[in-house]
Amino acid sequence: MDEDKLDKIKGFRIDKSMSVKDMVEKMRFVGFQASQIPKAVDVIKRMKKDNATVMLSFTSNMVSSGLRELFAFLVKEKMVDVIITSVGSVEEDLMKTKKPFLLGDYDFSDVELHKNGINRIGNIFVPNDRYEQLEKDLQPFFARIFEKRKNMISPCELIHELGKTIEDENSILYWATKNDIPIFCPGITDGAFGLQLYFFKQENDFGIDVTADMNKLADLVNNAEKTGGIILGGGIAKHHLIGVNILRDGLDYAVYVSTGSELDGSLSGARPKEAKSWGKLQEKANSIFIEGDATIIFPLLLAGWIE
Amino acid sequence: MDEDKLDKIKGFRIDKSMSVKDMVEKMRFVGFQASQIPKAVDVIKRMKKDNATVMLSFTSNMVSSGLRELFAFLVKEKMVDVIITSVGSVEEDLMKTKKPFLLGDYDFSDVELHKNGINRIGNIFVPNDRYEQLEKDLQPFFARIFEKRKNMISPCELIHELGKTIEDENSILYWATKNDIPIFCPGITDGAFGLQLYFFKQENDFGIDVTADMNKLADLVNNAEKTGGIILGGGIAKHHLIGVNILRDGLDYAVYVSTGSELDGSLSGARPKEAKSWGKLQEKANSIFIEGDATIIFPLLLAGWIE
Amino acid sequence: MDEDKLDKIKGFRIDKSMSVKDMVEKMRFVGFQASQIPKAVDVIKRMKKDNATVMLSFTSNMVSSGLRELFAFLVKEKMVDVIITSVGSVEEDLMKTKKPFLLGDYDFSDVELHKNGINRIGNIFVPNDRYEQLEKDLQPFFARIFEKRKNMISPCELIHELGKTIEDENSILYWATKNDIPIFCPGITDGAFGLQLYFFKQENDFGIDVTADMNKLADLVNNAEKTGGIILGGGIAKHHLIGVNILRDGLDYAVYVSTGSELDGSLSGARPKEAKSWGKLQEKANSIFIEGDATIIFPLLLAGWIE
Amino acid sequence: MDEDKLDKIKGFRIDKSMSVKDMVEKMRFVGFQASQIPKAVDVIKRMKKDNATVMLSFTSNMVSSGLRELFAFLVKEKMVDVIITSVGSVEEDLMKTKKPFLLGDYDFSDVELHKNGINRIGNIFVPNDRYEQLEKDLQPFFARIFEKRKNMISPCELIHELGKTIEDENSILYWATKNDIPIFCPGITDGAFGLQLYFFKQENDFGIDVTADMNKLADLVNNAEKTGGIILGGGIAKHHLIGVNILRDGLDYAVYVSTGSELDGSLSGARPKEAKSWGKLQEKANSIFIEGDATIIFPLLLAGWIE
Repeated sequence: MDEDKLDKIKGFRIDKSMSVKDMVEKMRFVGFQASQIPKAVDVIKRMKKDNATVMLSFTSNMVSSGLRELFAFLVKEKMVDVIITSVGSVEEDLMKTKKPFLLGDYDFSDVELHKNGINRIGNIFVPNDRYEQLEKDLQPFFARIFEKRKNMISPCELIHELGKTIEDENSILYWATKNDIPIFCPGITDGAFGLQLYFFKQENDFGIDVTADMNKLADLVNNAEKTGGIILGGGIAKHHLIGVNILRDGLDYAVYVSTGSELDGSLSGARPKEAKSWGKLQEKANSIFIEGDATIIFPLLLAGWIE
Repeated sequence: MDEDKLDKIKGFRIDKSMSVKDMVEKMRFVGFQASQIPKAVDVIKRMKKDNATVMLSFTSNMVSSGLRELFAFLVKEKMVDVIITSVGSVEEDLMKTKKPFLLGDYDFSDVELHKNGINRIGNIFVPNDRYEQLEKDLQPFFARIFEKRKNMISPCELIHELGKTIEDENSILYWATKNDIPIFCPGITDGAFGLQLYFFKQENDFGIDVTADMNKLADLVNNAEKTGGIILGGGIAKHHLIGVNILRDGLDYAVYVSTGSELDGSLSGARPKEAKSWGKLQEKANSIFIEGDATIIFPLLLAGWIE
Repeated sequence: MDEDKLDKIKGFRIDKSMSVKDMVEKMRFVGFQASQIPKAVDVIKRMKKDNATVMLSFTSNMVSSGLRELFAFLVKEKMVDVIITSVGSVEEDLMKTKKPFLLGDYDFSDVELHKNGINRIGNIFVPNDRYEQLEKDLQPFFARIFEKRKNMISPCELIHELGKTIEDENSILYWATKNDIPIFCPGITDGAFGLQLYFFKQENDFGIDVTADMNKLADLVNNAEKTGGIILGGGIAKHHLIGVNILRDGLDYAVYVSTGSELDGSLSGARPKEAKSWGKLQEKANSIFIEGDATIIFPLLLAGWIE
Repeated sequence: MDEDKLDKIKGFRIDKSMSVKDMVEKMRFVGFQASQIPKAVDVIKRMKKDNATVMLSFTSNMVSSGLRELFAFLVKEKMVDVIITSVGSVEEDLMKTKKPFLLGDYDFSDVELHKNGINRIGNIFVPNDRYEQLEKDLQPFFARIFEKRKNMISPCELIHELGKTIEDENSILYWATKNDIPIFCPGITDGAFGLQLYFFKQENDFGIDVTADMNKLADLVNNAEKTGGIILGGGIAKHHLIGVNILRDGLDYAVYVSTGSELDGSLSGARPKEAKSWGKLQEKANSIFIEGDATIIFPLLLAGWIE
């Protein structure tokens, strides 16, 4: 091993005007997880330069957080081509077009919160009226949509239609519809959105054919010259993104951000290298795993990414 | 605080004939996560005594592991009433009816594994021929099912039908079908099962209406005198289980086992107390969170549970 | 790769009389962390069979827990040859000879506890009177010891002397002194023990020469035919144990149990393989890492170990 | 609960010139761990405004990383008053004055590294010659020091003397000695520094009295109007810092950064609230816990802190 070929570990001086972009670059020489951030930025830049189809997955708690506006920015600027997420992301993006979520506290009494009609997601508080508004927005939307198409719709189309109803430049769905960037949601009946579908079903005959999105997603992957994944958190969104890439010879590029454990065999904690055994990630792929909370990691990635 | 009302911390002597059941009871006085195990057993026993509808959720990696046979035992003995899981559990339960998965190694080279046609899930190895067999089993099954019902089927029905094709007393699906215990799978198009659906769709016209299971699951929850959740791991299975219990006034009992972080706001790491703010868990509920790998924790819970 | 050489993943049936020893053996085929437990037992058995000097390290919270009595059993039965730990283990082993610690609750209000004079370690409660008793026990002990040896004593000798004052068959120190098994404690001035040393120092002239134990520990390691480490948790105890083995060509055998993260570069989360780069673990070493809470993992290891 | 009193969750736009300081402030409204960072900055600013004695603890892997230069900056600028750390920090700060550590890779073969004479700390590589240089530097230093003081020295004095030998403006020890900021190291015989002490002891009669620092540290804490702790990582450094504050009525302010688990009862994962039960943290204390890798979190804290 030629020592001279390795970078030297070195801290940096911070002053009050240092830019995030500059700091991210300097983190390269700090070691541990700090070094993974500029390396992940490198991977993202390579996928973009290579004209890869960029697939982004995230969990709904990230939409609960302020990452929502960052994701909306990505979609507005067409920096990603495909989104895969859980349905909570869809409902919360919509809810936030009417009223914001609130910064609370991890340790506030949950029993007390329930008495006050407030729901907790970590240190984020969501009062019940946001869910009441969701009902007011979704029921007439469902009525209109399912009247038009007597029987079936796919999750992706449903979300696309929902985006048309939104006027909010901070909304992911608004820009996704405008820029025709598909949002795939393989678990559409989960969450509050799912409960609203259930309520609507009490009086209405309709269905959602989840298989109807499969060709579309497969085509996107099959027709891509290259594919790159930016995979925040775990769950069905992560699994779906890397799974569909089996159809080609795997993702060409991958950035994973997660707090999950590797050793319990969960997909959420699985590292990029595991995907190589599956052909979900190419052997020569550029891939990076960053352990950490996406609310901190992703803004740093984005700062390193934008020009 | 009356010190005399608290149990004393105390270790125990182990000998080679000590039963697991006995050890679990003695772990009560060890402290930290050891104490959570007998407390969780207490919660499970209370839900059973109270005739609660017992809902079990787990992630598919647990079916990759030897927990599969423990889950099959629970279903055979009708110790649980409802299962919610991700689709990987369905496909792997089926795959294992033909050939076993293998005990490998976390650190084996993934590139080497890929060359050998072996897929890795943590330290579990799955050779490609298992997936080839899956294709051989699912394609004619799909052909038969979708011929009968010209258009739509629900995920729950589809899995029930699949169970009829299985002759394996170690299979979860085999017993679920036999004992009419429903398996809900809100993300049916994910995983290898999803890919097989996609292949089938290339030549066939069919659909799966995910909304078709909602009434059935809601009725089970609404009609239950009490409900209890045994929630292993996170993901859509966990979220779906606790989410549907909003329809009644929340779960009466809950045992969570997870390695997830609480502080990044992920559902996978969310503790039972958070569910109270949402009315997903009753304020007076008996609930326990155990941090750890379910492959170790669940056998201990089960040993404490069985009579 | 020859598939037939790999074990098959397979669950097991549990009945109420199943022994822990039997279950541990059956966990071998479960996968994930369950499989690591019998593998760790194999490593321990090999180190014993090989007449290795068995070195045990643990953190003080494990002595707060009921693992204390398990450690005492190991020392009584001479199953380990050397102990390295933090000073909290010493003080708490002594404290428990007078009054037990109590099983409390993770979520009880800490402010309320403080008002009640109760200190919390996770879900273990320690009332203040235990610390008052510690003072009553340590001050006259220090007076007696430091009168005899006008100037210096080593931590190891001090702990050995303390063990002579104990009459409790559940005590680690009692058996360590009786069986002449050294307890090394490189951070003796930390914790409540350290505070008691500070109080004693206000009126007394004495010192503790930490370098005085180095020859003894080095000789133990240098003279050993083979060495094996059972390393529970992280911190200075873990580091000291693996560090001293640099003096020979590294540990021959190692079992690590930890909840620590690998990716932040902390020693607490470091895996055995990292020790190989340092010559702290032999390249051919038998080593296993188990991720989990030692209060659950260690009883299982011990059940597999004892004959 | 008055909703209007809570901040609204809101993302932010990033451009290439955005300053880190600005981003940290905007993270306040992102939720989850992002929000904890500006809150921790608030706590630090309050401790400074309140003229609190600022106590900093960190683990040695942080000195392996590029945080070393950030710590040196803090000490140079007298932004902290007391340091408590493990001995690895002392040896590595010294080693880096001669030759840098190198940025490697988590997954590089440890056996290969050992053959190449390279030691791994996560993704940081340390070639053996750095340790050979340490020996060359420490042996004559020990000879000189222990000649002067025929018998005993305290760890804190020893480190102070070592700082005098250093000419490197990136060194923590250099500035600590220059600015007379004490570095406490309760486990001085651990690590490579400890091994060097052991080698020196083969031929020389000397000792290190660890109890000799206790008065000094206790006086610092007792005489402080207020105390604040910035506690990075766990281990003996963390425990020593919060433990000594029992002598007064606890820390007035505390910021913890850790990846440790709360539920296994380890001190490393213990949250600030637990310290309240012990009187190690005042009930009214301003305290924040941030879960994450300090190589990412600490630069953000520092950027928010500096004016």
